[in-house]
Amino acid sequence: MAGAAAALARTPEPPYYAVIFTSLRTQDDSGVDNGYGDMSALMLTLAAQQDGYLGVESARSALGITVSYWRDLDAIKTWKRHVDHAAAQKRGREEWYSAYRVRISKVEREYGM
Amino acid sequence: MAGAAAALARTPEPPYYAVIFTSLRTQDDSGVDNGYGDMSALMLTLAAQQDGYLGVESARSALGITVSYWRDLDAIKTWKRHVDHAAAQKRGREEWYSAYRVRISKVEREYGM
Repeated sequence: MAGAAAALARTPEPPYYAVIFTSLRTQDDSGVDNGYGDMSALMLTLAAQQDGYLGVESARSALGITVSYWRDLDAIKTWKRHVDHAAAQKRGREEWYSAYRVRISKVEREYGM
Repeated sequence: MAGAAAALARTPEPPYYAVIFTSLRTQDDSGVDNGYGDMSALMLTLAAQQDGYLGVESARSALGITVSYWRDLDAIKTWKRHVDHAAAQKRGREEWYSAYRVRISKVEREYGM
């Protein structure tokens, strides 16, 4: 997704959940994006308003990776079904992505610098 | 990291593990990289040779995200302690990264298109 802040997410002590979304675009990002950039930014804003949201990290080069962090599986499920998010997912499948994977994972340990 | 293939990882049926590595560089990638690009490519090659390695996905824009996939926690631990990888981690802390997070997570569910 586009529009993510250039900062690492400040997540709480594990356990919590990570949704790892990886994707290949249907076209080069330098071309017309068919509303992709605006929708990505809107989804990041909306996600941040959901109950149980803990943060997001996003980058795109040859492929795109967006990792969003959540308190529990219920929060992930509720966000997946959010009406605006569901519409974005549909456009993603139909227009923006040639392939994508969603991996739902439980963060057991975190460290860093 | 640099050097990752422009493809989504083909991982097996869950459960398996994901190591989510997110980082901020000390300097712009357009400048001199102090060996970062070469080391990143070497680490991706070496990781792929480890027992229990399942795949990797990597992207960098304002921040970098590399997600590597592993069969189990033992495989992750062995790779973390690999002598060449340990040297790369040290240079990362001292030269390449202003901040990073490592999150070790268990993938419970995967789907996509």
